[in-house]
Amino acid sequence: MALNKLRRMGKTRSGRETLYHQVAHSIQRQIGQGALQVGDKVPSVRLLSRHHRVSVSTVLQAYFWLEHRGFIEARPRSGFYVRVPYDTLVPEPKYLERKTTPKPVETGSVIQEIIRMLDDPSLVPFGAACPAPELLATNKLNQVLRRAVNRYPAHSANYDFGPGSSLFQRQVARCSLAYGCNFSPEDVVATCGAIEALNLSLRAVAKPNDIIAIESPTYFGVLQAIESLGMRALEVPTFPKEGMCLDELEHAIRKHGVKAVVVMPNCHNPMGYVVSDEKKKAFVELTARHEIPVIEDDVYGDLAFDGRHPTLKSFDRNDLVLLCSSVSKVLGPGFRIGWVHAGRFRAEVERLKFITTIASPSLSQLVIGSFLESGGYERYLRSLRIAFSEQVQSVSKAIAKYFPEGTRITRPRGGYLLWVELPKNVDALRLFHDAIRENISILPGTIFSPSARFKNHIRISCGYPWSERLDRALLTLGRLCQQQAS
Amino acid sequence: MALNKLRRMGKTRSGRETLYHQVAHSIQRQIGQGALQVGDKVPSVRLLSRHHRVSVSTVLQAYFWLEHRGFIEARPRSGFYVRVPYDTLVPEPKYLERKTTPKPVETGSVIQEIIRMLDDPSLVPFGAACPAPELLATNKLNQVLRRAVNRYPAHSANYDFGPGSSLFQRQVARCSLAYGCNFSPEDVVATCGAIEALNLSLRAVAKPNDIIAIESPTYFGVLQAIESLGMRALEVPTFPKEGMCLDELEHAIRKHGVKAVVVMPNCHNPMGYVVSDEKKKAFVELTARHEIPVIEDDVYGDLAFDGRHPTLKSFDRNDLVLLCSSVSKVLGPGFRIGWVHAGRFRAEVERLKFITTIASPSLSQLVIGSFLESGGYERYLRSLRIAFSEQVQSVSKAIAKYFPEGTRITRPRGGYLLWVELPKNVDALRLFHDAIRENISILPGTIFSPSARFKNHIRISCGYPWSERLDRALLTLGRLCQQQAS
Repeated sequence: MALNKLRRMGKTRSGRETLYHQVAHSIQRQIGQGALQVGDKVPSVRLLSRHHRVSVSTVLQAYFWLEHRGFIEARPRSGFYVRVPYDTLVPEPKYLERKTTPKPVETGSVIQEIIRMLDDPSLVPFGAACPAPELLATNKLNQVLRRAVNRYPAHSANYDFGPGSSLFQRQVARCSLAYGCNFSPEDVVATCGAIEALNLSLRAVAKPNDIIAIESPTYFGVLQAIESLGMRALEVPTFPKEGMCLDELEHAIRKHGVKAVVVMPNCHNPMGYVVSDEKKKAFVELTARHEIPVIEDDVYGDLAFDGRHPTLKSFDRNDLVLLCSSVSKVLGPGFRIGWVHAGRFRAEVERLKFITTIASPSLSQLVIGSFLESGGYERYLRSLRIAFSEQVQSVSKAIAKYFPEGTRITRPRGGYLLWVELPKNVDALRLFHDAIRENISILPGTIFSPSARFKNHIRISCGYPWSERLDRALLTLGRLCQQQAS
Repeated sequence: MALNKLRRMGKTRSGRETLYHQVAHSIQRQIGQGALQVGDKVPSVRLLSRHHRVSVSTVLQAYFWLEHRGFIEARPRSGFYVRVPYDTLVPEPKYLERKTTPKPVETGSVIQEIIRMLDDPSLVPFGAACPAPELLATNKLNQVLRRAVNRYPAHSANYDFGPGSSLFQRQVARCSLAYGCNFSPEDVVATCGAIEALNLSLRAVAKPNDIIAIESPTYFGVLQAIESLGMRALEVPTFPKEGMCLDELEHAIRKHGVKAVVVMPNCHNPMGYVVSDEKKKAFVELTARHEIPVIEDDVYGDLAFDGRHPTLKSFDRNDLVLLCSSVSKVLGPGFRIGWVHAGRFRAEVERLKFITTIASPSLSQLVIGSFLESGGYERYLRSLRIAFSEQVQSVSKAIAKYFPEGTRITRPRGGYLLWVELPKNVDALRLFHDAIRENISILPGTIFSPSARFKNHIRISCGYPWSERLDRALLTLGRLCQQQAS
């Protein structure tokens, strides 16, 4: 199939598809149609490059992508072969249909204590959702930092309204085109990380005792925020591959009177799914019909393996979506810089921001603004996506190899988190403590739910490049699971 | 009087006194006792330097200090002369005895709107409490920043727990000796500015509807925090020179059941007083007797003109004082870095910090930690104190000259804020709007009280070096007051 045809097909699928992607899909299709079968050698890189009139590196990227998705495998000094589909080896976690009722969140200090235990840099880092420092754009960031400091020596002499602040707003607005939005710079409110954006958004749209609908499982930071603000959480059954069930959400809205919804439709933490465009649109229409504000957490949005997907916000015609994000997962959490586009709640969010932290760090805004302005962000993201996709794949394979039968793992479509369902009789909290004793950090599934669900689930962060150390750690984790399972 | 004698006297007064201070006090005493009278020339610098066996610059510093306090004045090419005491020309604001009852704070968006109007850099800057950028240690800060970034290139690759964080904690702990404390580094919780420290402290010690005792007037940020958390404020009558009235506080505690107290005993915003050591001790004993947590805001503490005074925290034997501070008023607000030593509430403050912003900006911690470590902070503070004392004095004189009869102004003992009581029939909010139209920013007194007090008060920030522009602006302000007063 020539590139022109591919290009035409590509258009009908999605304008976002990159070249390598289109090449990969052509092979995937041949596998699906049986033209290529398990054990078959796929066409050589050189051949395919000539055939599609694309570069060798594009074809290689396509093959790596197929390899990471489990369709093909490399055999040393021989080439790529169609393999037994990875999907058939380890199933995905089950969809939990069970409904819950709205309830105050009572995590107490459990999450805090668990998170504090991850702080130890000597642990194998499967716990905290941080990328390995060596993957980050450290040199480039420091280069723009030095230049910016020379240019604006008095960078931190004021609250916020400096050159860094407006540069940051402009760059975030510019980048919003990538996810289907077109922000005005002045609508971008800088925050101390996405977590501040989430907290301010919750406070802006709801009051103590109000019911907040959440995904199940959901990022524990959302649970802590709901708890600390005295609101009530309502878990909506969530598909491991498609996100929150819309029927269940509508049912919850009618039955309980939901005040707001918090969701992460792009590269969900912890499940890694990307909600389809159609479903995003339907979601926004549903919540708009009921005039319910939606807090959208997009911190992993730039890390979808197949490129940027639109946000809920891009379908929002009623200014009801509050889009929260940050650079923490992509450029470094230490900058503590995030933002929120709060739609019709902007004034209230700005007021609360002023009251709780007045302004956001000037240096961070200056560095990140300059970095985004300097170009090359998209290229940087591409290398990150490939790295994370590889790392997720390596960890998945090791889990498939070492963990007991009955284990299920997600197929993340972005980010670097894996959600693992263990056999029913494995207690994840016990596993967490056992693992810490073996110098391995993980997160127990219970902290992702306000109702003590996910007792046999864990979240594994794949932020670090694959190594023998990680392999050994997963072998150990598998052994600890076996001990409990048998 | 020889230095030895001065030194001995110094010891009985306060161990904190510096040499120049002691020289100044000896002259002050001679004026007080009538040995030097209005119009008399004070001894020459050279003479006094020989007499006290101190350097010429120490004596000069003493004379400048006396000049700023209004005891002496320089006559060109002639020397220093005793002048008509400044205190007798313009009186200080009156003590408001009137009691209030606990009530929810309802500032709505007024404060926010007023603050937003200060954002315009073309305004004469009497509004926001920011020092002039040219007074800050910009070069030194950027020097340590560049060095730190070279040394720790991956400075922002993690949440908080990096070299910057522990360095920052250590340096804050070391500096705490200056105000009578001796913190352990691990007890220092870094925050996004003192305002976050205040918010977290309030949330840690009180719940919605609880009564928080505050000074009257009080920093408007405290009012906004109390309002946004649904607590109630109780204004305790406050002396313009000595701080909160202890009898009234005890009365309020007995009558209303106070849950916590928020105070600023060192260089109060807006009144500029420094509470005496004896009263600080009595205050801590009183609140400890009733087991009431005290939130101490110390952001201007390093800027007392006569050197560092002890904090309430230094008298705290029951771990009931939560000391909040930041570098915003001294090194630059854009760093957004503060801290809290929360005593027995530390775990709760840490938990809330994690929930609302997770961590504090790494670069800011690294820069400030390195700056404090590099030495010279005390010397830098001395030059800042002299600058601010001069600026406050210049603005005070201009107000005395241009404002209508019946105007009263505070005698700040540190910081750079003036609290001005205008004649009864001047409406400060109207004055604020009139001033903005003349391109001058000030703050109306009403935003410093939850009960619409201080309608004829304004706060004037003296953060900028004296200039003709400031003089003209004060002339204009005086004219605007006259228009209302007559």
